[in-house]
Amino acid sequence: MDFEVKGVAIDIDGTITHKDRSLNLTAVSAIRRLKVPVVLATGNISCYARTTAKLIGVSDIVICENGGIVRFEYDGEDIILGDIKKCVKAVEKLKEYFDITVLDSEYRKSEVCLRRTFELEKGREVLLNEGFDDVKLIDSGFAYHIIDAKVSKGSALRFIAKKLNIREKDFVAIGDSENDIDLLKTAGIGVAVANADKKLKDIADIITTKKDGEGVVEALEFLGLIA
Amino acid sequence: MDFEVKGVAIDIDGTITHKDRSLNLTAVSAIRRLKVPVVLATGNISCYARTTAKLIGVSDIVICENGGIVRFEYDGEDIILGDIKKCVKAVEKLKEYFDITVLDSEYRKSEVCLRRTFELEKGREVLLNEGFDDVKLIDSGFAYHIIDAKVSKGSALRFIAKKLNIREKDFVAIGDSENDIDLLKTAGIGVAVANADKKLKDIADIITTKKDGEGVVEALEFLGLIA
Repeated sequence: MDFEVKGVAIDIDGTITHKDRSLNLTAVSAIRRLKVPVVLATGNISCYARTTAKLIGVSDIVICENGGIVRFEYDGEDIILGDIKKCVKAVEKLKEYFDITVLDSEYRKSEVCLRRTFELEKGREVLLNEGFDDVKLIDSGFAYHIIDAKVSKGSALRFIAKKLNIREKDFVAIGDSENDIDLLKTAGIGVAVANADKKLKDIADIITTKKDGEGVVEALEFLGLIA
Repeated sequence: MDFEVKGVAIDIDGTITHKDRSLNLTAVSAIRRLKVPVVLATGNISCYARTTAKLIGVSDIVICENGGIVRFEYDGEDIILGDIKKCVKAVEKLKEYFDITVLDSEYRKSEVCLRRTFELEKGREVLLNEGFDDVKLIDSGFAYHIIDAKVSKGSALRFIAKKLNIREKDFVAIGDSENDIDLLKTAGIGVAVANADKKLKDIADIITTKKDGEGVVEALEFLGLIA
């Protein structure tokens, strides 16, 4: 390899978890052996991300709400990068077309999370036709998310890399879903696990032969990051 | 044993985690093999508890905020059993005597959590002398908590047992701290791990020889709950 890996950014659900969202313990054990900072990157809320970081036992640096929030410390503050107001307006419009169920509304600060009750492409069409170009509708595989068009897991990684004084290209990123595309593109090496969305595999540098957590271990070994 | 175990209630921090609060993976793996419902019982916030339950992969039934909140479903609602107003008043009084740092205030709904910046017994003395007998000041080993005197992890277990149509005495409870005393007393069998607070060991039916997560595995094996 022509560069030194200085950090690893890893999606949580579907990447280091089984289908039922329980942790793959082999992956956890491998991640603990990494010698570089690990940034967990999730579409889930900040409290979910910081808890997961603590329980896995990695750095407390996390990307939450698909890049709408970053955190550097367990007891620190949410740094809010996405504008939830734009997202709320877009959801109001979607409600005119579809039966909408909002999830986790109590905790979300930068985006709106929706149950997958309508066709993704149809939702996007509505937003496009109605002129909502300041938001994106994305699918984490577990829920839909309306996020500020200015943010992504990739832009959040850039924010973190800058703060850590590392180039974002010195990161390896590992994911499974469409909402990981920008993350993998932003990092120097992008890894899609075997169960990943086709769109993510299309832009990945490495596609593992094994699924979720086993795929993470496979990639970290392949890259020489763990013995 | 003269009774059938129908559920296991387990504290999180210090009981199934290492000192740095990362999960003991041997304990997680053992807990996953249990054939009875597992109730996680923590002094931490509801979002921390539900995340931990999901990542461990047990039932989504959790006791949070030292019994001030219970939840039955991951996407369900917090059932608030403790009155935070009483606790806030008590904290105002403590502020007249000590340098107080409130933790997690954004998320707590039934109690107030404080950094351990003063002597526990002195705090209790103040509350006693000032007539605050409707709250308790307890120590989870990680923080102090001012909780509604009517609630405890034990009272929350009774609430859950009733809902599940199980007797609370059919539960095994495992913990490490003072805030687990009522939990262990309420359950049919109370287990203190080797690193437990002396006060907890004093009332436990079983004290494991091993610490935290290893102690949990030892107890579950001893009780014949896992092979």
